[in-house]
Amino acid sequence: MTDDIEAYLAQTAERRLDSYRELLRIPSISALSVHAPDCRRAAEWIAADMAAIGLENVEVSDTGGHPVVYGDHLHAAGAPTVLVYCHYDVQPVDPLELWRRPPFEPHVRDGRMLGRGAADDKGQLHAHLRAAEAMLATTGGLPINVRYLFEGEEESGSPNLEPWLLANRDRLTAGVVVISDTGFFDGNRPAITLSVRGMMYAQIDVEGPPIDLHSGSFGGAVENPANALARIISELKDRDGLVRIPGFYDRVRPISEADRAAFAELPFDEGAFQAGIGVPALAGERGYSVVERRGARPTLDVNGLWGGFQGERTKTIIPAHAHAKVSCRLVADQDPDEVFSALRAFVLEVAPPGVGVDLRLLDKSQPMSTPAGHPAVAAAAAAIEDAFGRRPLFIRSGGSIPVCAMVRDSLGLPVVLMGFANPDDQAHAPNESMVLANYEGGIRAICGLFDRLAVGGLAG
Amino acid sequence: MTDDIEAYLAQTAERRLDSYRELLRIPSISALSVHAPDCRRAAEWIAADMAAIGLENVEVSDTGGHPVVYGDHLHAAGAPTVLVYCHYDVQPVDPLELWRRPPFEPHVRDGRMLGRGAADDKGQLHAHLRAAEAMLATTGGLPINVRYLFEGEEESGSPNLEPWLLANRDRLTAGVVVISDTGFFDGNRPAITLSVRGMMYAQIDVEGPPIDLHSGSFGGAVENPANALARIISELKDRDGLVRIPGFYDRVRPISEADRAAFAELPFDEGAFQAGIGVPALAGERGYSVVERRGARPTLDVNGLWGGFQGERTKTIIPAHAHAKVSCRLVADQDPDEVFSALRAFVLEVAPPGVGVDLRLLDKSQPMSTPAGHPAVAAAAAAIEDAFGRRPLFIRSGGSIPVCAMVRDSLGLPVVLMGFANPDDQAHAPNESMVLANYEGGIRAICGLFDRLAVGGLAG
Repeated sequence: MTDDIEAYLAQTAERRLDSYRELLRIPSISALSVHAPDCRRAAEWIAADMAAIGLENVEVSDTGGHPVVYGDHLHAAGAPTVLVYCHYDVQPVDPLELWRRPPFEPHVRDGRMLGRGAADDKGQLHAHLRAAEAMLATTGGLPINVRYLFEGEEESGSPNLEPWLLANRDRLTAGVVVISDTGFFDGNRPAITLSVRGMMYAQIDVEGPPIDLHSGSFGGAVENPANALARIISELKDRDGLVRIPGFYDRVRPISEADRAAFAELPFDEGAFQAGIGVPALAGERGYSVVERRGARPTLDVNGLWGGFQGERTKTIIPAHAHAKVSCRLVADQDPDEVFSALRAFVLEVAPPGVGVDLRLLDKSQPMSTPAGHPAVAAAAAAIEDAFGRRPLFIRSGGSIPVCAMVRDSLGLPVVLMGFANPDDQAHAPNESMVLANYEGGIRAICGLFDRLAVGGLAG
Repeated sequence: MTDDIEAYLAQTAERRLDSYRELLRIPSISALSVHAPDCRRAAEWIAADMAAIGLENVEVSDTGGHPVVYGDHLHAAGAPTVLVYCHYDVQPVDPLELWRRPPFEPHVRDGRMLGRGAADDKGQLHAHLRAAEAMLATTGGLPINVRYLFEGEEESGSPNLEPWLLANRDRLTAGVVVISDTGFFDGNRPAITLSVRGMMYAQIDVEGPPIDLHSGSFGGAVENPANALARIISELKDRDGLVRIPGFYDRVRPISEADRAAFAELPFDEGAFQAGIGVPALAGERGYSVVERRGARPTLDVNGLWGGFQGERTKTIIPAHAHAKVSCRLVADQDPDEVFSALRAFVLEVAPPGVGVDLRLLDKSQPMSTPAGHPAVAAAAAAIEDAFGRRPLFIRSGGSIPVCAMVRDSLGLPVVLMGFANPDDQAHAPNESMVLANYEGGIRAICGLFDRLAVGGLAG
């Protein structure tokens, strides 16, 4: 990054924060239809900003839901093309009473920008715009070709993104996608996320008699749906934490020696992790460390279960039915539809006779891994090291970001996750914030990434 | 029974139903404190009735809750003494909208008395009073010595009965207790219940992290309380329906050849039973028929379970805690406290590390069996056959009537269950009724029982 850009950023620091706050003031909660006009207002605010700083072909593009904002700058002949993805919609704000200040009245305190969307993901989107502004203002161009795609429905499951990507595939040609919607490691250690897990989320319904039965008159003679549900769930995993569904691990990529070494190098203290959660012991699949279990191994968890009497004292019934929500976090190259089919077949096999069992797939997303050794990772790592003074860790997220695989698969492009949030930013929770040093460092890291890609290209 | 008594009963038939209705009009719901005055009014109504027909030492006796009504007639020197037990309190009436007529406006239709308490247990209590009235009015005495004990808290767990029994033990001397609070077999076949099951009702609380955790960030690294609960429950029974708690069956009396033959003779159609419930298959402990499973074998059922997310779609959490209500129906000579201790030890043993597990005993009652071959059973059977024209079946109830063992143990007396309700009387449900032929036959069977005990005694 040139001194010119640094000087420009220094001069515009105050205006930048004003602009950041302006974007945060728009309550673009995608999940609540009452905020649909706010989502459009946020999209139009961004489009106006993009046009003002010199990006081209700026468009607020309608989808079946909230619009996508597109813009590009494609004048770096011979240089790589990057597609930048962020989202401008935010999570709902309830419980509102836990916010110390109103969620859409952003303000700076203790080196943080506070407000809904400060970190997830308006702050990161805004950092991209400010990086482009600084480069365009000081050099009249960008060192590489860049397309910007800002979504408005990420926090409500991106129901309209995939059709939009497929319909616009021809004008989205690029060499790599850079998604800025992730973050750093504990202790605000700079990090690049190399993978996110996918998800298969199902409901198991166990049906017994049409009505609750008296447990005295019928107890011992009729299969109890709640007991049957417990048996089904217990069959799904063995005592070593291994999922027993046949074929479940067939497509799981084994952890390489290099991965294992990278996991072992992470500054992760299992004792502190356990103490932080407040459980008497950690658990999980035998033979793997916590960071390996979380980052590179699939899981199976009951997210909820219910059936029969839940009141204060006693009711002597055989419940008519019992239910569980069961989800798996998936790793490459597992497929949620395949996993659901295997789960379904196994559950029907192990279910006791005397009850009916039904399964429904409620949600799914594909796992995503950045291709090992992709040159944009090296470029991003070097840019982050320059901007933050510390080499980033390479981490694997236990969570799921469905857009990662959606963008990858719709456009056939590799995805690199370069995000600047901090683990304690309270994304999705009250009092969300972003560390301003991360926001500022992020702007500089983005400039640095573009510079390095201009020199090194994407060929590796 | 003499012709005089039959003539008296014929003459007083209309007045008898008026009196029955009068008792049913008092809303003596013991579980609702707003009805405490009604419970006392019912007790006083009964006491006045007892005094009017010539019973002695009549007393409305205070307990910590609703009163006990006592009265006796002890002038049959040399004859046995019977303690009669019924209860005058009734179940709540909700859901009120399902009653075709108000629950406390009793009326006769299609040969039934309809109204809350018609069968359970005011109708049976009233039959005892009318039997005594008929005998006293026609013969000036009773053929045996009789003490009457009418409780007012049976439908709310009899919390004050045991202390009252122990405090009044000296004036409750008798040779046998006759409880009229049970009923006939399917098809209104006369029956004598030889045993009721006991109960151990516990809650299992599985505690994980202090708050719900994100299933992506923590999934695979922390024990999931809902999965742990499912494993615990599934360990409690094997696939053959056998309870796996060590020692659980130690005190269970094996089914004798005679019992087995009696069970086999019951007019019970397993296919019709299954069709009536509406389940795809029956289930239960291998090696036993349905009536054996229900009447002579203990059970273990989940009455309810819950934890985590129960909403419509998805929430990706590891629940902080999960819970189950688990109850066992017990048979002689199992003890609920022993069973709870064994359950507790076993659950703590099989619970996975990484969660805390706590168990609480919520309710308990002892199983009760009438001593095999007790002479009062033969007398009751003969009296029922005389009154109803059909030899009674000997059945074992799958349900629990805690007062049976409570009376037996507090007073050290054998208990015979001679009841006249019909399985379709809808006790505890809307539109409760009693078949008037059962009520009338019951009066005559009670007279017949007293006559036979006067002749045959209790020595066997």
